[in-house]
Amino acid sequence: MAFARQFDPQAFHLKTKPKEESLLGGIAASGWQTAAISMRLFVDMMEVTGGMIGVAVDGLRWPRAVRPGDSLRVEIKILAARLSTKRPGYGVLRYRCITRNQENEIVQRFLATAILPARTSS
Amino acid sequence: MAFARQFDPQAFHLKTKPKEESLLGGIAASGWQTAAISMRLFVDMMEVTGGMIGVAVDGLRWPRAVRPGDSLRVEIKILAARLSTKRPGYGVLRYRCITRNQENEIVQRFLATAILPARTSS
Repeated sequence: MAFARQFDPQAFHLKTKPKEESLLGGIAASGWQTAAISMRLFVDMMEVTGGMIGVAVDGLRWPRAVRPGDSLRVEIKILAARLSTKRPGYGVLRYRCITRNQENEIVQRFLATAILPARTSS
Repeated sequence: MAFARQFDPQAFHLKTKPKEESLLGGIAASGWQTAAISMRLFVDMMEVTGGMIGVAVDGLRWPRAVRPGDSLRVEIKILAARLSTKRPGYGVLRYRCITRNQENEIVQRFLATAILPARTSS
């Protein structure tokens, strides 16, 4: 609710209303909060010296509401990796990010492109 | 930096390093923070009773870094609006969201689909 108050202050992110009164069937997290939490989970497991910068996100979907008390986890699948032609010393990664709740249900998914320092600069 | 500490704790979002040491050319906001701020700007100007729920985001790009002190504004262009066939009483909106800085440069853009209560339920 703190996130929603700051960034997405709509009723269904802020108030515990009866199910039938809410478009989301009860209070639910802003999709942007799910995205931000997923980024944190990704950063915490990344082992990339120098960090990774997202440049593109496609097919971002929130197929299921995130509820208070849900536990989220993130799966990253690297789809492609190549050296950057425009930025010597950097690589370009294409990956899929899937966020699931404690019931293993998908609550968010997207495809992303990111740049990061390459292991060799050749 | 508070947002980055919580959700995207990578060096180029947290430390004011010399330009040449950072992939982003100096400290810059996390793209997810730009997305969250853009949502807030959108919510503040929305006049939708019952709120609007994003279901899909495509073509999310961050073509330029957001720097400390930047002022952001959001432009929303409705591309299509129709009544929902699956949810009677709701409408489906397709829109483009562009976020610009104080120099009028585009710092973020995406296409989105959202559902919201329709004016009539016919």
